[in-house]
Amino acid sequence: MSTKYVYTFGDGKAEGKADMKNLLGGKGANLAEMNLIGVPVPAGFTITTEVCTEYNKQGKDKVIELIKSKVEEGIKETEKAMNAKFNSTDGSFPLLLSVRSGARVSMPGMMDTVLNLGMNDETVKIVAEKSGNEKFAYDSYRRFIQMYGDVVMGVEADEHETNPFEAVLDKVKQAKGYKSDAEYTVEDLKTIVEEFKAVVKSHAGVDFPTNPWDQLWGAICAVFDSWNTERAILYRRMEQIPFEWGTAVNVQAMVYGNMGDTSATGVCFSRDAANGDDFFNGEYLINAQGEDVVAGVRTPQQITVRGSKQWAKRGGVSEEERSSKFASLEEAMPEIYSQLHEVQQKLEDHYCDMQDMEFTIQDGKLWMLQTRNGKRTGSAMVKMAVDMLKEGMIDEKTALLRLEANKLDELLHPVFDKEALSKAELLTKGMPASPGAATGRIVFTATTAEEWAEKGEKVILVRRETSPEDLKGMYAAEGILTERGGMTSHAAVVARGMGKCCISSAAGISVANKKLIINGVEFNEGDSISLDGSTGIVYNGEVKTENPSLDGDFGKVMDLAEKFTRMSVRTNADTPADAAVARKFGAKGIGLCRTEHMFFEGDRIWAIREMILAENVEGRKEALAKLLPIQREDFYGILKAMDGLGVNIRLLDPPLHEFTPNDSKSQQEMSERTGISQDIIHTKVAALHEFNPMLGHRGCRLGNTYPEITEMQARAIIEAACKLKFEGFDPKPEIMVPLIGTVKELKLQKEIIDATAEKVFEEKGLRVDYLVGTMIEIPRAALTADEIAEVAEFFSFGTNDLTQMGFGYSRDDAGKFLPIYIEKGILKNDPFQILDQEGIGQLVRMGAEKGRATRPEIKLGICGEHGGEPSSVKFCNSVGMNYVSCSPFRVPIARLAAAQAAVEQAK
Amino acid sequence: MSTKYVYTFGDGKAEGKADMKNLLGGKGANLAEMNLIGVPVPAGFTITTEVCTEYNKQGKDKVIELIKSKVEEGIKETEKAMNAKFNSTDGSFPLLLSVRSGARVSMPGMMDTVLNLGMNDETVKIVAEKSGNEKFAYDSYRRFIQMYGDVVMGVEADEHETNPFEAVLDKVKQAKGYKSDAEYTVEDLKTIVEEFKAVVKSHAGVDFPTNPWDQLWGAICAVFDSWNTERAILYRRMEQIPFEWGTAVNVQAMVYGNMGDTSATGVCFSRDAANGDDFFNGEYLINAQGEDVVAGVRTPQQITVRGSKQWAKRGGVSEEERSSKFASLEEAMPEIYSQLHEVQQKLEDHYCDMQDMEFTIQDGKLWMLQTRNGKRTGSAMVKMAVDMLKEGMIDEKTALLRLEANKLDELLHPVFDKEALSKAELLTKGMPASPGAATGRIVFTATTAEEWAEKGEKVILVRRETSPEDLKGMYAAEGILTERGGMTSHAAVVARGMGKCCISSAAGISVANKKLIINGVEFNEGDSISLDGSTGIVYNGEVKTENPSLDGDFGKVMDLAEKFTRMSVRTNADTPADAAVARKFGAKGIGLCRTEHMFFEGDRIWAIREMILAENVEGRKEALAKLLPIQREDFYGILKAMDGLGVNIRLLDPPLHEFTPNDSKSQQEMSERTGISQDIIHTKVAALHEFNPMLGHRGCRLGNTYPEITEMQARAIIEAACKLKFEGFDPKPEIMVPLIGTVKELKLQKEIIDATAEKVFEEKGLRVDYLVGTMIEIPRAALTADEIAEVAEFFSFGTNDLTQMGFGYSRDDAGKFLPIYIEKGILKNDPFQILDQEGIGQLVRMGAEKGRATRPEIKLGICGEHGGEPSSVKFCNSVGMNYVSCSPFRVPIARLAAAQAAVEQAK
Repeated sequence: MSTKYVYTFGDGKAEGKADMKNLLGGKGANLAEMNLIGVPVPAGFTITTEVCTEYNKQGKDKVIELIKSKVEEGIKETEKAMNAKFNSTDGSFPLLLSVRSGARVSMPGMMDTVLNLGMNDETVKIVAEKSGNEKFAYDSYRRFIQMYGDVVMGVEADEHETNPFEAVLDKVKQAKGYKSDAEYTVEDLKTIVEEFKAVVKSHAGVDFPTNPWDQLWGAICAVFDSWNTERAILYRRMEQIPFEWGTAVNVQAMVYGNMGDTSATGVCFSRDAANGDDFFNGEYLINAQGEDVVAGVRTPQQITVRGSKQWAKRGGVSEEERSSKFASLEEAMPEIYSQLHEVQQKLEDHYCDMQDMEFTIQDGKLWMLQTRNGKRTGSAMVKMAVDMLKEGMIDEKTALLRLEANKLDELLHPVFDKEALSKAELLTKGMPASPGAATGRIVFTATTAEEWAEKGEKVILVRRETSPEDLKGMYAAEGILTERGGMTSHAAVVARGMGKCCISSAAGISVANKKLIINGVEFNEGDSISLDGSTGIVYNGEVKTENPSLDGDFGKVMDLAEKFTRMSVRTNADTPADAAVARKFGAKGIGLCRTEHMFFEGDRIWAIREMILAENVEGRKEALAKLLPIQREDFYGILKAMDGLGVNIRLLDPPLHEFTPNDSKSQQEMSERTGISQDIIHTKVAALHEFNPMLGHRGCRLGNTYPEITEMQARAIIEAACKLKFEGFDPKPEIMVPLIGTVKELKLQKEIIDATAEKVFEEKGLRVDYLVGTMIEIPRAALTADEIAEVAEFFSFGTNDLTQMGFGYSRDDAGKFLPIYIEKGILKNDPFQILDQEGIGQLVRMGAEKGRATRPEIKLGICGEHGGEPSSVKFCNSVGMNYVSCSPFRVPIARLAAAQAAVEQAK
Repeated sequence: MSTKYVYTFGDGKAEGKADMKNLLGGKGANLAEMNLIGVPVPAGFTITTEVCTEYNKQGKDKVIELIKSKVEEGIKETEKAMNAKFNSTDGSFPLLLSVRSGARVSMPGMMDTVLNLGMNDETVKIVAEKSGNEKFAYDSYRRFIQMYGDVVMGVEADEHETNPFEAVLDKVKQAKGYKSDAEYTVEDLKTIVEEFKAVVKSHAGVDFPTNPWDQLWGAICAVFDSWNTERAILYRRMEQIPFEWGTAVNVQAMVYGNMGDTSATGVCFSRDAANGDDFFNGEYLINAQGEDVVAGVRTPQQITVRGSKQWAKRGGVSEEERSSKFASLEEAMPEIYSQLHEVQQKLEDHYCDMQDMEFTIQDGKLWMLQTRNGKRTGSAMVKMAVDMLKEGMIDEKTALLRLEANKLDELLHPVFDKEALSKAELLTKGMPASPGAATGRIVFTATTAEEWAEKGEKVILVRRETSPEDLKGMYAAEGILTERGGMTSHAAVVARGMGKCCISSAAGISVANKKLIINGVEFNEGDSISLDGSTGIVYNGEVKTENPSLDGDFGKVMDLAEKFTRMSVRTNADTPADAAVARKFGAKGIGLCRTEHMFFEGDRIWAIREMILAENVEGRKEALAKLLPIQREDFYGILKAMDGLGVNIRLLDPPLHEFTPNDSKSQQEMSERTGISQDIIHTKVAALHEFNPMLGHRGCRLGNTYPEITEMQARAIIEAACKLKFEGFDPKPEIMVPLIGTVKELKLQKEIIDATAEKVFEEKGLRVDYLVGTMIEIPRAALTADEIAEVAEFFSFGTNDLTQMGFGYSRDDAGKFLPIYIEKGILKNDPFQILDQEGIGQLVRMGAEKGRATRPEIKLGICGEHGGEPSSVKFCNSVGMNYVSCSPFRVPIARLAAAQAAVEQAK
């Protein structure tokens, strides 16, 4: 431990600086830094994190002894810088303080702040007198007692969960008939202060401390103690923050924007957070406190003349009214404005990023209270990064890391027209299952969706839930709304794949008998609704949409990603059209082509059903012979669209009953087509029923019990590849066997595939390179990946199923408890959206390591939904995967995340 | 490598011995050993496993060069010992040889044997002349060509899978109108020999080798080559046998029991394999080969006079006929018999176990061809072990290890009267789901089973499948037969728990409309059938059963187990009655008490349903209040039955829809009882439907979404325990939270349990010790067991669910592919019966190690079905578990397996 316990700042000087975060905490280091670069900041000092560690070891008394004189010196410095006096008894302006915690990394909610420290029955009078505002003084005093009582003295709500301070306030309000806190008179406030003191006495058992020094030590120790509250411990465990780090304590002079007309407070931004323009902007209020700006009671004024004029134009405010009632800071306080302008430029230059700043003007003097990197929209984010790179403010790697991958999504989908949206009626909110905006007329069946769309009608497909039979209807629709299912339901997954907007399991809706009921209101076929798939909000009627403009900045960002990435990005695509979209977005091949998605088109389903209902191998082979040319065409198209790039084709995966005719109408049609009695068809379909189809007869279990299916699919793939090669293309098929749990399952399937391929090569007189590999999607496959790699030439991690089986969550059913789990903090995220690195990640890492141990050159990829989720993509980079694969519209996001991962890892 | 390549044996001498298995292989070492202890064995020699390793490194030619002179010396020794000449051309008796592989451990099916080596056109004539049996000579010759052609020269079946040798034999048979091979004349055999040679020439492209030395080197090299066939490699990989071990080659003189009336062959046992009596017994045939004894064409004769007389009495053969036609060896060849009697005694004394021996008498001389430890029934196994221990032949540990734990089961259940069984008509065979014999009249509903049983009728409950609602009917029945479900179906698991006989998914049966149809034959209510749950066979009509006699030997074995075991054995029991049975069998507590099994009795189900259908927390609490006293009574009973021992009580586990009224009749009753409309009940029940209930809203997910359920159950447990303690008992409740996947789930549940317990302690004014722990049954729980152990005081591995999720197999559905998987060798065993140590075992080991890393004293157990399966029990011992838990009737088996594991580990 160093012997310097306290670091002062203020008046353009500071003992600390920005890179001393470990010692001073994030907030303390930044307060020092702002001082150093000449930004006016209220003076104060930081007690180091090491003192906190000592506090935990030696206890309160020893530590106070240790730092007492240093804190007293700190107060003296602060008094000097602020020209005020702590514990003022001689009539000089009292120094009031804020006391806050500040760890190395932000730990929001760990401890509340104590403001206005230093108030007592003496100082309040001086403040009242000096500020000429008695109400302000007593209001500050009562706020201080409440805050200090709560945070430092532990005054808590009683068993009826009534806060005793609030009870006092309510009592006064009721007695006087007030509606808001603003109506308290000075006399009321004086009464309240006395009653607050009584509350403290009765709850804490001691008097409220009147000596500011006692107040200060109480607050400092409370901050140190807060490091060990249960919520702080839990938070640290979740975020893996070591106990030893400790927290710093920041003691800083208070400043006030509500001391009259030469005071003000506001927020401002160094660039436009909405579109990224390099335009200084913001809002302020004269004679107000920070919370007044955001509370919306008074209309805030603009910082700049330019902003003010734009604002007036939008709101229909005349130039006269504007300049008189809503003058900009540039006009109202030109000198202060010019200081603020200089400060914001300085801060942006210093931090090399757009700044979001808070300031207070106290009696004609500007104080900066906070600066931080500003939030921004997706397109602003892209524009700022590219602009700052051009300006030389940041380098390429910084520009890349500056971007939030998920936000690219905003740039890829239609959005609502802002004007139109502001007038739209909100109906309900569901899961934002697939992003984008869509508007159209309600239809309830896939067939109607197709028919209406063909007539040029824009439609929204509304279903209880979707199944593969709805695919064509989903294609035809602008967007999809479902009553059930979560972020990884069939509707959600397919919609994301198509880049179509989708909202699932919206609250209060039910779909039945061609009626959509939303919170009791009935909607019929043909009624218009609008969906915002990015927020999950459903609007009434039509809302105008705008198509995204993929301008040059987006392309530049993608070029940067390409330059730095190690992993490549593939796409999950089942059709040549999807493949083409993904290739446009920069996909380097297909990571997952689900052959079964091809089975629902046109008359194919009948051939599948014939195969399923066949009595024996011969019957199955006969039906499969009908499917062979169809599948070959499919694979020809996909391989051609991805000419020269790897195409990972997964053999038949879902349980057969997903294809069977389940209702009596289609059983009848089946009977007419095949001549098999409807009774027998019914019995066969019933026999295929499974209690837990997810864990049933599917994946390679089909291929191993009906090897002729694998044979047909292998033949279709290899024949298609041979045809393309003959035509001069460069097909690269990778044949993937799903749901492997034991090496022997894969071995038997590979034998069939290889034998079939050899036969085709002999028949065609040419050879094509191909790989045979497997999904790692069953926990046991990850556990025995070393054995499986003896046969597999590649692994593709199926993290959807790995999550289902590793957690024991059925993604079709988890909607019953997952939302509650997330709400209660049992889970940080939905593990189907964000890979659970802690648990499921262990299986992925184990699979990758064991696979490489057996076969060092094995190709590793991921094809679960997580392949398009940035934090999961970074995890994939960390385990050394060769590629990630995601739906076409996630490709740009995955590319950016992959590049960021490479840059971060190189650091 | 040592420089001794060849070890000879014969004539009472041997260069090797029993403990040289690594060098000589198992067979070679044993052949040497038998020589050393003075047992007459045909002479020969063993080429060491090291030569095989050298063969793999240096190749054929160098190795032949290396060992040529040693092999020639070996042949010379053998010639001397057997008084015969290899490659005889001078008219002396030809030495014919057998050549076999022999690795350190048995690798059955890795390579076929070559017999009669040394035959050619010359030697066959000498054999014919010397044996006076031309047919014998030529038949041996043609067998040699076929075997050598197949094994050494690789003559294989053609594309139509016709074996060319068999084709020749068939051709002759057809031409002559023969029905069996025995009808060939000498002339036929000579023709066949010539045609066989032609087959070899055309298939292998070279002449059949006529020189015995060429034959010998061919056979030796073929054995070495066989080490590297695909099936041998696969077998080694499955059994984890290192490639470097190599195989030895055993070259041994042939002897013949079919050379006339002074020759014979037979098998014998040093004790009675059926009941364990110390009674030498066996069968033999004069002038016959080994296969004749087992082929059943001739009636074998008994070895001893005693055995022969017993045999005659059983078969109704007169003493005259017996002594003339079926004389015992003791009577027919008294001198040889006395040699054989001495040999069997010597071998049993030497190997300290009951021996199963093969012998051949060639022209008045006894040769022992093989000895091995004999197979035996369960009761014989127990009796022999206890007898041999008494006799001082073996020590306690050996006696323990000698026992096959699974076979104890035979001693615990009723069995069929042998006499009655031999006359019973077999109907079909199903899965032997729960052992024992049962006979009774068919009933189709649980209610009828109860009613009839109350009237004193013995009934067999026949169902398509069983559900918890059938529990009382299952109790009332003698046995259960189901159309569907496997070894781990509800019926199977519950029946095993009750110690009731059960057969599931029998072939060709269907149950519908109060009819049981077995292969087209109809059975009605009241018809009699009998079930053998140990074999899965269903018999027509009543078959008399006998109760097991648990005699003193069984108790002695259990005492031995108790002495050496490290782990204790608990039981899975849900009722005081089951608990009492298990305690009688030596259970040391309850490892799994499933609270939900208690929910189906009497009117309880209605209270459960009321809770499920409740609109809100208050409604649920009201219904739970009705359940509280019932549950408290349950727990009181169980804790009392296990006074002083730990009782692990699992909180509510299954998805709620298992309890709901699913048919309209019970929905109507529910509506009448509650006043809730039937429509609403129907809707509520439908809403509880899940696609994959196994992965759905169950286990602690219920307790975390409806904390009031956990609260009620915790209160019932703690109140019961307090009551017992007050009454002077010593209750030891262990409260187990099921289906934990994240530590937070457990933490929240433990908070409820602890808070409830504290309230109860305060109310009752006394405290009881209790533990809170969790199942490790979800893969993620095993992966994060270090975190979970921060909260859990014990782990109980739920290997049923761990297997379901780790493999991705639903045990309700796996019947569609598991049998095929086992048949194809994809799986060695049904992983629900025998723990998959390779895959799922990794999760168990990981869970145990991570758990102990956080909490070294954590109590570890297993409560899946595997807890009663011996190999799985041994695995549990190896990972350091404290106990295993199994159904009451598996307790003795588990105790024995646990003791064996401890003894083996100590070695």
